[in-house]
Amino acid sequence: MALSKKPTTGMKDILPEEMQVRDYVIGVIKETYGKFGFTPIETPCVEAIQNLNSKQGGENEKLIFKILKRGEKLDVAQATTEEEVVDGGLRYDLTVPLVRFYSNNEAKLPAPFKALQIGNVWRADRPQKGRYRQFMQCDIDILGEPSNLAEIELILATTTTLSRLGFRDFQIRINDRRILKAMASYSGFAEESFDNVFIILDKMDKIGMDGVEAELLEGGFAKEAVDKYLDLFRKLEEAQDGIAYLAETLAGFLDEDVERNLQEIISSVRATKSSDFEIVFDATLVRGMSYYTGTIFEIAMPQFGAACGGGGRYDKMVGRFTGKDVPACGFSIGFERIILLLMENGFQVPGQPKKVAYLVEKGIGGGRLCEVIAKAQASRGEGLNVLVVRMNKNKKFQKEQLEKEGYTDFVEFYKDPLKD
Amino acid sequence: MALSKKPTTGMKDILPEEMQVRDYVIGVIKETYGKFGFTPIETPCVEAIQNLNSKQGGENEKLIFKILKRGEKLDVAQATTEEEVVDGGLRYDLTVPLVRFYSNNEAKLPAPFKALQIGNVWRADRPQKGRYRQFMQCDIDILGEPSNLAEIELILATTTTLSRLGFRDFQIRINDRRILKAMASYSGFAEESFDNVFIILDKMDKIGMDGVEAELLEGGFAKEAVDKYLDLFRKLEEAQDGIAYLAETLAGFLDEDVERNLQEIISSVRATKSSDFEIVFDATLVRGMSYYTGTIFEIAMPQFGAACGGGGRYDKMVGRFTGKDVPACGFSIGFERIILLLMENGFQVPGQPKKVAYLVEKGIGGGRLCEVIAKAQASRGEGLNVLVVRMNKNKKFQKEQLEKEGYTDFVEFYKDPLKD
Repeated sequence: MALSKKPTTGMKDILPEEMQVRDYVIGVIKETYGKFGFTPIETPCVEAIQNLNSKQGGENEKLIFKILKRGEKLDVAQATTEEEVVDGGLRYDLTVPLVRFYSNNEAKLPAPFKALQIGNVWRADRPQKGRYRQFMQCDIDILGEPSNLAEIELILATTTTLSRLGFRDFQIRINDRRILKAMASYSGFAEESFDNVFIILDKMDKIGMDGVEAELLEGGFAKEAVDKYLDLFRKLEEAQDGIAYLAETLAGFLDEDVERNLQEIISSVRATKSSDFEIVFDATLVRGMSYYTGTIFEIAMPQFGAACGGGGRYDKMVGRFTGKDVPACGFSIGFERIILLLMENGFQVPGQPKKVAYLVEKGIGGGRLCEVIAKAQASRGEGLNVLVVRMNKNKKFQKEQLEKEGYTDFVEFYKDPLKD
Repeated sequence: MALSKKPTTGMKDILPEEMQVRDYVIGVIKETYGKFGFTPIETPCVEAIQNLNSKQGGENEKLIFKILKRGEKLDVAQATTEEEVVDGGLRYDLTVPLVRFYSNNEAKLPAPFKALQIGNVWRADRPQKGRYRQFMQCDIDILGEPSNLAEIELILATTTTLSRLGFRDFQIRINDRRILKAMASYSGFAEESFDNVFIILDKMDKIGMDGVEAELLEGGFAKEAVDKYLDLFRKLEEAQDGIAYLAETLAGFLDEDVERNLQEIISSVRATKSSDFEIVFDATLVRGMSYYTGTIFEIAMPQFGAACGGGGRYDKMVGRFTGKDVPACGFSIGFERIILLLMENGFQVPGQPKKVAYLVEKGIGGGRLCEVIAKAQASRGEGLNVLVVRMNKNKKFQKEQLEKEGYTDFVEFYKDPLKD
């Protein structure tokens, strides 16, 4: 088969210009999260297939890049199903691997454990503009902290990071899975239909109240339940304090602790935030993953239609590996979206060293070449970036090209030193 | 199937302690190579299977983690061979992807193009101590530079980086594939047997001159050729200037340019190196990959039996993708070995911010919690790392644990501010 020059379908090459922005953003992320006591960890990109197919990944489990068994374990001719030929897969998120990591290494980790992960994940999505099958995720998680100190620190760390990257006027929307459930339960939906109700509710910001009503009725839900449900959302829009309104209305359906918990997170973040963003309660916030057990949150950017990150509490997931539940809460930044926004706005990486190009006449060698290189080494030692490159025939064009790469100073060297 | 707590066979979880060292080393690498004008790029971890199976990867092509086709393209029941069910694989090195990247993006890249790649690669090697199936490689390559300026800059950039990481007294061994070939040809070996001769020669530092002689004879090579070949190496040991000796002896078999080229690289590096290492000609240096066409080199560390990195010139590889050859030369650092050496020597990452832990009495909430967090935020703004954590019953043990993680200062906060 002919060699392919293109990256494999749906994945992309990253050119120097974008890499510079990515490296800068990763640096800011690591430094800022470090200040909050998060420590980087890494897990392999490949996970055992049973871990990826454990029903924690929702729809993503349909998008796994699967890895073929090797050697004697593989018998393609005999096999009739995928399961027989596969033993691993590329991770589709960083949460399942984190929980496995924690289960595997708990004894060596501090309690609570504050993890920072920056790494690629893979999903065999239908290729579309701006979405790739390999993309970077950036997650922070706190394992072993039952109180809302986890949520507060996660939100402050994330917003501080976004703010250091120059983002303003964004919003943190926050909700609680228990409120979602209580609202549905109070309205008379059966528990087994909750997920279907939430999938429709999740479209509220796109199709509006009427759209949600229509889809619920089309979905076969009782008119009475739908009316009662939507009435809650209508009343919420008028309420001064939405959380208090719900706590009162849903009494008997909602754990009393939920109100205090959410109010405390919101007021603590408001009181201590140093940057320019809002945190607001939003009863229509769903977040897709079924593993969330409590608080859920999302970043809404005015410049960007979709969410730019999100997370929540998932207290029951470690138990699936170890048999013993450990409280857990995480926040994932939409790394690729942030890069896209920065690139679109012509973001210039600050604090770059001065770039100097030495143009060296062709044929220079021996002692003369040593002189040039020694000079370059000295300048590098003083902090400059020095490119040593052969001088082209068309020197003017060469310099123009180098200027595009950010070179501002040029020094020419000839075989005859007197010509320099 | 039960969930697996362990990483998948042959791969490893990276804990915070090691991650800190890795992040530091990556930072030094990026900064130092940047000073030489290398720019970071990235390619997808997955490559089309025909690119990985293109005979450029040598033995590594037997170790590919292969990726299953998806959707309608996959029919396991009908398939009888691996080829029918596979369309991609995880890259086993960064050179094949670089060459594909260059072929794909040449028009957008400067000429010459100086690339820095740091990324994971995967090889389904037999698991063994200290060797993993996923590991990081760190490569610099110069594409489009035909002269030995490429070799000189690659060697200086790499040795400067190693030196900044604290390595001393290492050796750069250098040779040229054309010398290897000329020596074999001069001795009377047939060209088609060169690779087998070189595989045996490569063991010189382990089995010595007598061992190489024995294995060549066992391999069925003519005694006359073996004698002539080994005689060259014996004479070399006595020669004042090995390269000059070979240039003279191999006249007619060796391109005249080779001597000048190697001498110039060695003398330029010696004249301009600022750090403590040696560069030596070594006619027994082979380097495994058959794609090398000229100079080859390797880092020998006294602390480490095996090579700690290496590279060379591969002028014919781009042409396999584009039909047009482009001169190319690269140097790969043994990233994992460097991390291992640093970790074994108890390397302390320099310049880390002071780490402070706030121990917060359980049950603190509301305005009091805001106070504590505001204080933490202020200190973070001043450059400190501040961990806010619930106070355990056994405060003394908690502090001891935190000290192990590098926390040096502790502040306690109680519900009653007078107790602080």
